[in-house]
Amino acid sequence: MSKIEVFDNQFPDRDYFITHVNEEFTSVCPKTGLPDFGTITVEYIPDKLCLELKSLKYYFLDFRNKGIFYEAVINQILDDLVEACKPRYMEITGDFTTRGGMNSTVVAVYDPHKRGGFR
Amino acid sequence: MSKIEVFDNQFPDRDYFITHVNEEFTSVCPKTGLPDFGTITVEYIPDKLCLELKSLKYYFLDFRNKGIFYEAVINQILDDLVEACKPRYMEITGDFTTRGGMNSTVVAVYDPHKRGGFR
Amino acid sequence: MSKIEVFDNQFPDRDYFITHVNEEFTSVCPKTGLPDFGTITVEYIPDKLCLELKSLKYYFLDFRNKGIFYEAVINQILDDLVEACKPRYMEITGDFTTRGGMNSTVVAVYDPHKRGGFR
Amino acid sequence: MSKIEVFDNQFPDRDYFITHVNEEFTSVCPKTGLPDFGTITVEYIPDKLCLELKSLKYYFLDFRNKGIFYEAVINQILDDLVEACKPRYMEITGDFTTRGGMNSTVVAVYDPHKRGGFR
Amino acid sequence: MSKIEVFDNQFPDRDYFITHVNEEFTSVCPKTGLPDFGTITVEYIPDKLCLELKSLKYYFLDFRNKGIFYEAVINQILDDLVEACKPRYMEITGDFTTRGGMNSTVVAVYDPHKRGGFR
Amino acid sequence: MSKIEVFDNQFPDRDYFITHVNEEFTSVCPKTGLPDFGTITVEYIPDKLCLELKSLKYYFLDFRNKGIFYEAVINQILDDLVEACKPRYMEITGDFTTRGGMNSTVVAVYDPHKRGGFR
Amino acid sequence: MSKIEVFDNQFPDRDYFITHVNEEFTSVCPKTGLPDFGTITVEYIPDKLCLELKSLKYYFLDFRNKGIFYEAVINQILDDLVEACKPRYMEITGDFTTRGGMNSTVVAVYDPHKRGGFR
Amino acid sequence: MSKIEVFDNQFPDRDYFITHVNEEFTSVCPKTGLPDFGTITVEYIPDKLCLELKSLKYYFLDFRNKGIFYEAVINQILDDLVEACKPRYMEITGDFTTRGGMNSTVVAVYDPHKRGGFR
Amino acid sequence: MSKIEVFDNQFPDRDYFITHVNEEFTSVCPKTGLPDFGTITVEYIPDKLCLELKSLKYYFLDFRNKGIFYEAVINQILDDLVEACKPRYMEITGDFTTRGGMNSTVVAVYDPHKRGGFR
Amino acid sequence: MSKIEVFDNQFPDRDYFITHVNEEFTSVCPKTGLPDFGTITVEYIPDKLCLELKSLKYYFLDFRNKGIFYEAVINQILDDLVEACKPRYMEITGDFTTRGGMNSTVVAVYDPHKRGGFR
Repeated sequence: MSKIEVFDNQFPDRDYFITHVNEEFTSVCPKTGLPDFGTITVEYIPDKLCLELKSLKYYFLDFRNKGIFYEAVINQILDDLVEACKPRYMEITGDFTTRGGMNSTVVAVYDPHKRGGFR
Repeated sequence: MSKIEVFDNQFPDRDYFITHVNEEFTSVCPKTGLPDFGTITVEYIPDKLCLELKSLKYYFLDFRNKGIFYEAVINQILDDLVEACKPRYMEITGDFTTRGGMNSTVVAVYDPHKRGGFR
Repeated sequence: MSKIEVFDNQFPDRDYFITHVNEEFTSVCPKTGLPDFGTITVEYIPDKLCLELKSLKYYFLDFRNKGIFYEAVINQILDDLVEACKPRYMEITGDFTTRGGMNSTVVAVYDPHKRGGFR
Repeated sequence: MSKIEVFDNQFPDRDYFITHVNEEFTSVCPKTGLPDFGTITVEYIPDKLCLELKSLKYYFLDFRNKGIFYEAVINQILDDLVEACKPRYMEITGDFTTRGGMNSTVVAVYDPHKRGGFR
Repeated sequence: MSKIEVFDNQFPDRDYFITHVNEEFTSVCPKTGLPDFGTITVEYIPDKLCLELKSLKYYFLDFRNKGIFYEAVINQILDDLVEACKPRYMEITGDFTTRGGMNSTVVAVYDPHKRGGFR
Repeated sequence: MSKIEVFDNQFPDRDYFITHVNEEFTSVCPKTGLPDFGTITVEYIPDKLCLELKSLKYYFLDFRNKGIFYEAVINQILDDLVEACKPRYMEITGDFTTRGGMNSTVVAVYDPHKRGGFR
Repeated sequence: MSKIEVFDNQFPDRDYFITHVNEEFTSVCPKTGLPDFGTITVEYIPDKLCLELKSLKYYFLDFRNKGIFYEAVINQILDDLVEACKPRYMEITGDFTTRGGMNSTVVAVYDPHKRGGFR
Repeated sequence: MSKIEVFDNQFPDRDYFITHVNEEFTSVCPKTGLPDFGTITVEYIPDKLCLELKSLKYYFLDFRNKGIFYEAVINQILDDLVEACKPRYMEITGDFTTRGGMNSTVVAVYDPHKRGGFR
Repeated sequence: MSKIEVFDNQFPDRDYFITHVNEEFTSVCPKTGLPDFGTITVEYIPDKLCLELKSLKYYFLDFRNKGIFYEAVINQILDDLVEACKPRYMEITGDFTTRGGMNSTVVAVYDPHKRGGFR
Repeated sequence: MSKIEVFDNQFPDRDYFITHVNEEFTSVCPKTGLPDFGTITVEYIPDKLCLELKSLKYYFLDFRNKGIFYEAVINQILDDLVEACKPRYMEITGDFTTRGGMNSTVVAVYDPHKRGGFR
């Protein structure tokens, strides 16, 4: 996978939210070999590090030809991004388009200190 | 009814939400014999098992020619899916289209440990 | 007024929500004699009884040529429906169209055990 | 200013919400002399008195050629309407259209018993 | 930078919210030299001083040819506006348009007395 | 039926279009006795006479308790309004809400000199 | 198939348009056995006969469990309805929901005298 | 009335369209004395002169407290603007908000050489 | 490339339109190596052959990892599909998402007998 | 100004349309010195040359700090792009945001052979 780069958070004394939305996420269904499409939303409160946007984009591009289920996409992204920037709070949402007449959403949260998210 | 298949939750240590939306649900009104149409939303926190999407689709198709009231549709789906995957939390919503100038919504929740849902 | 019919709640062990929306409500302004139009929403948690949809439609039709103010419409509907089905919770909302450049909304709640509603 | 008329609340035993929305509010900017436009929303829980809709409309019309800032519009309306109907709760919102590339919203609340509003 | 002017809050006895939305914010990416575009929302509860709208507009215009990252834009605006009007509460939101297939949002809050905001 | 009043067209030398839209039209289905709801649009090029708006409103109100089919509603309105103001062109459109799972639209045109309408 | 009933057109001297939209059409794919869903629009200029709405609804219901391709659905409906009411013009449109990541539309027209339709 | 200023068209060799939309038009109903609100759209092909935007704004402001019917508003604006800039083509549209349950639109065109407009 | 399959048009005596919309088209920019995303619309009048939907889906999937410019995508699809089904008319539209702050659309038509399309 | 680059049209035998939309256009009002914002749409039929997208983006960026009126923006872009790629047809549209309560649109067309555009 591409390396997720980070940079120093210049405002560590304040809890604030950063959200990045990728409306062009695509991976491959491991069962059918057909492509899946979705929107991935990353919401987090940085601690000492912020996610660098361009490397995040390349990280998402690595899923393009990878066979992986919806549940695993979201949990793996959460694990990878938490490890990369060690945030105070992080929430990953994937909204996937219709397959077999049904669309699906998966949401996972990292919240060690129970600060809570936007909602 | 079709068997609802499940698979192992690979991330049981984390509470996370999965939502499946079927916008093409249809059953039959037991009173008039005319078809009903609606959108069924399944939201849940998996415990040890996740719902397999294709079998869920076939489970919904079994209602196509079945005579059943709105309230029973939602409560039966909740009972069947809870039994199939024994989730930590589950919420079923049915938004049904206009009949006699009125549209209807029914929402039922399974929440044994009062973890609460999205809202 | 038309009699509001009820039927037995088959799932009394579970708190669940039923919503009926009538987008074609009309009554008459007692002051001007001109028609009022609005959308009436009934949200409730049934106890032992559920509202029968067709009789509810005829109940609303009785307001068509009745002179009554917005505030009275909503409070009377709440009183009538609570008496008919003795729910655990009920909320009636009326969204009325523009009159004299202003549109109006009235919301009344019956919540004897403070279980709270959707919001 | 026009007198705001009131009428007796017929349902004083129950807390319920009344909302009136005027999408055609206009006043004059005291600085530039140019007109301001906005939407004014009045939400309240009546105590013994309700606001009469037609007199409320004429009350709003009095601002048409009056020079007044956004902040003063909302606070004055709140003061005037609270004095007129002595509600249990009242919230006034003004959404004003774009001026100098910026649109503005002002919200003020009267909540003597901290019953809270819709949100 | 342009000086942010203020004027006396005429209603200091009441907590109320003022929101200003600038849909035409633009600055320059320090990395690529290309322009960034976004919507900046300022929500605050004034204490003794209110922000003067025209000077706020000129303050935002100063970012037009300035190289600055999203996170710094929002935190600097919060610092500058808090210093200018010493509010009881202030929240700054920046919704930035798509870059590299991703759009971003940054939200920072000043809340010394934990009065909380709109949401 | 209420009399449709007219007034002199002050600009008879110019072909121009006038449109009136009534979003609150209601009549009664002669078959079921249940109310029908719809939006009626009147588009015309006046000749010597214009339709007076208030009398047009009262004309539409006369349909409230009248049993009449969709096709007849539109053709009768066209006949009545053409007779009242003798326009150079007139088009009547009725968009009726869902009945039996289907919504209906009826459009009729009076165009003696084939000047054509908006579309 | 259900018989499509007709009634006499009361306004045969005038060309006018009637449109019926069924948003709840469903049939079965002959290849997969899975249900298809779509919106069927019937636009026509009646000659001596109009389509009776209730029988039209029952005609559409007959497709519910019938295996038939999109192209055949639309052409057969056009043939059947032209035969039933012998219109001056008729256009049938079917908008079908997503299958295999693609949604489809089919439009067929009967226009013996080339009068042309709405568009 | 305010004077409508013009400036030289720098591109007279080419037919091109200019559109100005004023969403904040208001005048007074001469019958009731109550304010009317609407959106005025000016579309034109300049000949030797273009309309100066700021003076156009002040021209519209002059209607604020003037008693005038919808039909006269549009025809007078067309006459005034044609006189001011002598265009090759001009079309004025007024979309007025709901009064007595009906909204109205008036469209008038100046087209001496029948070049036709956008539609 | 995948073979585009066809089947016999059962209604060759009638000109009718078939439209297929693929909202999940993706290819690769030959210059940057980054993925492009877009919606491809195929509109055609069949002659003796219709496009088989499933093979059309697989044909589009072949572009997933292919480096090709927008203009070439649309013209090649038109050439390939015309060759496959020899239609009476065909129009291909590609709406591509934002790149470098600009989104692009390309439309190409095959119309040997100048029958014209939908628009 | 930046040089607008072009590349060879690979499909010169066919008339087809290419559209590029820049939603982030900004220039400066020569009268007030304040920024203007708008959306620029370029629609054209290429002859022997196509516009290169990246150089087009840089061409638009050159307007960022340039003082120029709306009418001149559109006519100059048309002149520059026609000169750069010598198309068979070209249409430039600018939709500019609200200034002084009015938004403006300017459309200019190059059509030497009167082939006509999309509309």
